[in-house]
Amino acid sequence: MNGAECLVKTLLAGGVDVCFANPGTSEMHFVAALDSHPQMRCILGLFEGGVTGAADGYWRMTGQPAATLLHLAPGFGNGYANVHNARKGFGGMVNVVGEHADYHLKYDAPLKGDIEGVARGVSDWLRVSSDARAVAGDGADAVRAARSANGQIATLVLPANTAWDAAEAPADPLPPVRLHRPRPDQIRAAADALRAEGAALFVGGAALHGDLAVLAGKIAARTGCRLMADLFVPRLQRGAGAVAIECMYYAVLENAEILKDVRHMVLVGAGEPVAFFAYPDKPSTPTPPSCHLLDLCGPRMDIAWTLQALAEETDALDSTPAVLALDLPALPSGTITAQKVGAALAALLPENAIVVNESVTAGQPLSDATRTARRHDWLNNPGGAIGAALPLAVGAAVACPDRRVIAATGDGSAMYTLQSLWTMARERLDVTVIVFANRGYQILRGELANVGVHSVGRNAERMFNVEDPQLDWVALAAGHGVAAERAHDMDSFVAAFSGAVERPGPFLIEVCLPSSAPGFA
Amino acid sequence: MNGAECLVKTLLAGGVDVCFANPGTSEMHFVAALDSHPQMRCILGLFEGGVTGAADGYWRMTGQPAATLLHLAPGFGNGYANVHNARKGFGGMVNVVGEHADYHLKYDAPLKGDIEGVARGVSDWLRVSSDARAVAGDGADAVRAARSANGQIATLVLPANTAWDAAEAPADPLPPVRLHRPRPDQIRAAADALRAEGAALFVGGAALHGDLAVLAGKIAARTGCRLMADLFVPRLQRGAGAVAIECMYYAVLENAEILKDVRHMVLVGAGEPVAFFAYPDKPSTPTPPSCHLLDLCGPRMDIAWTLQALAEETDALDSTPAVLALDLPALPSGTITAQKVGAALAALLPENAIVVNESVTAGQPLSDATRTARRHDWLNNPGGAIGAALPLAVGAAVACPDRRVIAATGDGSAMYTLQSLWTMARERLDVTVIVFANRGYQILRGELANVGVHSVGRNAERMFNVEDPQLDWVALAAGHGVAAERAHDMDSFVAAFSGAVERPGPFLIEVCLPSSAPGFA
Repeated sequence: MNGAECLVKTLLAGGVDVCFANPGTSEMHFVAALDSHPQMRCILGLFEGGVTGAADGYWRMTGQPAATLLHLAPGFGNGYANVHNARKGFGGMVNVVGEHADYHLKYDAPLKGDIEGVARGVSDWLRVSSDARAVAGDGADAVRAARSANGQIATLVLPANTAWDAAEAPADPLPPVRLHRPRPDQIRAAADALRAEGAALFVGGAALHGDLAVLAGKIAARTGCRLMADLFVPRLQRGAGAVAIECMYYAVLENAEILKDVRHMVLVGAGEPVAFFAYPDKPSTPTPPSCHLLDLCGPRMDIAWTLQALAEETDALDSTPAVLALDLPALPSGTITAQKVGAALAALLPENAIVVNESVTAGQPLSDATRTARRHDWLNNPGGAIGAALPLAVGAAVACPDRRVIAATGDGSAMYTLQSLWTMARERLDVTVIVFANRGYQILRGELANVGVHSVGRNAERMFNVEDPQLDWVALAAGHGVAAERAHDMDSFVAAFSGAVERPGPFLIEVCLPSSAPGFA
Repeated sequence: MNGAECLVKTLLAGGVDVCFANPGTSEMHFVAALDSHPQMRCILGLFEGGVTGAADGYWRMTGQPAATLLHLAPGFGNGYANVHNARKGFGGMVNVVGEHADYHLKYDAPLKGDIEGVARGVSDWLRVSSDARAVAGDGADAVRAARSANGQIATLVLPANTAWDAAEAPADPLPPVRLHRPRPDQIRAAADALRAEGAALFVGGAALHGDLAVLAGKIAARTGCRLMADLFVPRLQRGAGAVAIECMYYAVLENAEILKDVRHMVLVGAGEPVAFFAYPDKPSTPTPPSCHLLDLCGPRMDIAWTLQALAEETDALDSTPAVLALDLPALPSGTITAQKVGAALAALLPENAIVVNESVTAGQPLSDATRTARRHDWLNNPGGAIGAALPLAVGAAVACPDRRVIAATGDGSAMYTLQSLWTMARERLDVTVIVFANRGYQILRGELANVGVHSVGRNAERMFNVEDPQLDWVALAAGHGVAAERAHDMDSFVAAFSGAVERPGPFLIEVCLPSSAPGFA
């Protein structure tokens, strides 16, 4: 048994049985080992950003790490942005990165690079296997790391000779590292704060869905505090029956308005809300300076234990959380807008859908409109590096083959990782992709104004608009083997979407929004 | 004048007047500054790999650095692979990477990342501007770095507040750092070696085209040595009238055969040839152990001075270099193969074309067939991270608007940066793209056999073939605004290619090769 075979067996023993892969030559022994273990499901991505983003989506919907297989430093580089996004959302994954045989490194071959350098900044755990006999233990440590601290990025660099040399045996799985918990006096202080006037329980991570969201809702119901969360959370349960959680918006001044009456904010599973970017003369955080911030349980700590303790301390276990009631809008018709697409989505969203939202400028209207639709999970991009939506949808669909996945994305953001369309077709994933084609980076027009520039000249216009030529998403989808339609009005959108969510496999709808391009001087 | 304006003026003063850009919010002041300087040509890429690869292509054809504009750590990550490729070919570029305002960094906003970490391993020069008044000097230093040592990657990180705060004045350009030169006794020793039996002058960099290739050819003609170069060089002049340079192949054992009689190898502008990858029981270098290696002038040293000194020392200035004679094959017909496409390309290549070759498995037949075509430049990928061809073609076409650019690429490699097709259409670049659609990562089939695995099962097959679904390159091109045709036989290829090189703007030809996919068990 060689090192690569030991690693595959170790991953399987540790419950890692999906591998999103974009391999190269240096990974051939690992590929051979995967080949002899059909219980590992190997899913090919044609670009590494699709691979790492899929692993993130898989984690969000299962709480299980997938493996990724990447080719040397440039392969990790291609996957970097979606590893960044995953890490910001506390995603767990095990990246296996092939490397030259260690004795070959000194020759500076074309593909030699600094894998540790590119991986370190986005990896919570990083190791280069020293020899074939160490690989199994390294693999078990990597899986443990991925499962620890509520989900971590574990990156294991596998020099080719550690894969092909003889090894001994796979390693047994290791339990995740025990989570830190707040002290009893901190629980009491938090309970007091939540009972005070102007209190908010600001939650994240596992508190945003399932039993823990219910527990958080009970605490809010009992203490009378607001229950709040950030905008770009990795997974939020919404729709009929879901616990009502008030979410932040994008603009920092809008959030400052939302938070202006908050005097006590207790953080559980979340950090302090911050501005997405800094702007001249705007604050870096939306929280009022007078607000008392109680950092009870960080995103890496024991969220479940903390909420249970807080519920007991506030005597909330038997209280009834406020939940969202089903409220479906009428199907809109006529000219197409993001708001109306949101309403149509709300009316037509299938029970138990998973919605991935990276619509950028269309994102908030979509989110607002669908909050009281049928029950669903809502996945945002917590890292802000656009190009997450299609890969996340792949991972979520692999994780939940019995649920419909909707990926709503801007045209600019979809272009970063459009290769994921092919993987959707290859794997027959039930993903409905909605591309908002506003023909440009509309958000940047607003951002340019945000920094005080109000006239757009030729160079800026050439960097904002994607009008010349227009991207043809029906053709792009077809090129990847995905059927598609273009919607110019609400009737065609409603017809396309109604059909798409019923048919097996992927389908793409291009929503043709009017561009706000002003034309350049 | 703010920091961003100072930087744009400094870049322009330093001769940097092309900016390949994929900006985001943190770069808005820089965008505004570009907007008020129309003498800077801004070219939008829809993915950062296209941006950095275009800067590389631009450098190769002009020797002038372009700027790139990238958005934070994930933006650099997306561009990482082609920065890696550029650096391996000693490309010069100035990467301007936007960063959060420095006072905002402590808040861990979604897009906060470790820019220095991701950039360091592929940057020869790296600096974070400390304040607006430092930006101009930093910019001048960056341009100097990019122009030094025969081309370097300079990365300047621009925190948003250093862009928007008040600054003083742009900085004057700085001369490149003086190049190191070999000692006179080393020149004499090299001349002696080249006159000995079994000698080879192994050249790289600027010695592969133009006057310096002629000088190298004269030295070879006078001394009787072989004139050789690596396979994956950034730019090689070939075709009728070009100095005859013997190039290496991909497989290390093939190269060992080519080099088996070499007893003295003098390196000028090149490192020792090495194996692309290590394999069990194969050598890491192809050079025979008995060969005496004389590392006269590394790729970062003064190649022009060294060749001149060597030519004088060998009394070669008046000798006549061996050049390639025009030898055009007949136009092939019938079934389509990579060899025949190479012959058709050789027959039809327009005078003074630029060929970018990343055809992977089809690359060698193409290269062999076209060596004696009409005069052209041949651009390979010296870093081996696939996804360079289309971006390089963009940069080369921007650099040389009066020349026809041919980008020959595998389907697997083209998928990594297919967004560059859009930039070709946007900028009306005269690029003819040839995609060899062999429906998979054919090279990996060979590499799996290379490591001793001869049966391919389901998991490996699912990672090698891109057959289900087939990529439709005509649709993919159309989606990006590029017209395209599919060639199923040589007649249709010849017709398509003949038309494509005559028409203005980009055109894509999908070459449908039979897949070697064996079908899985």
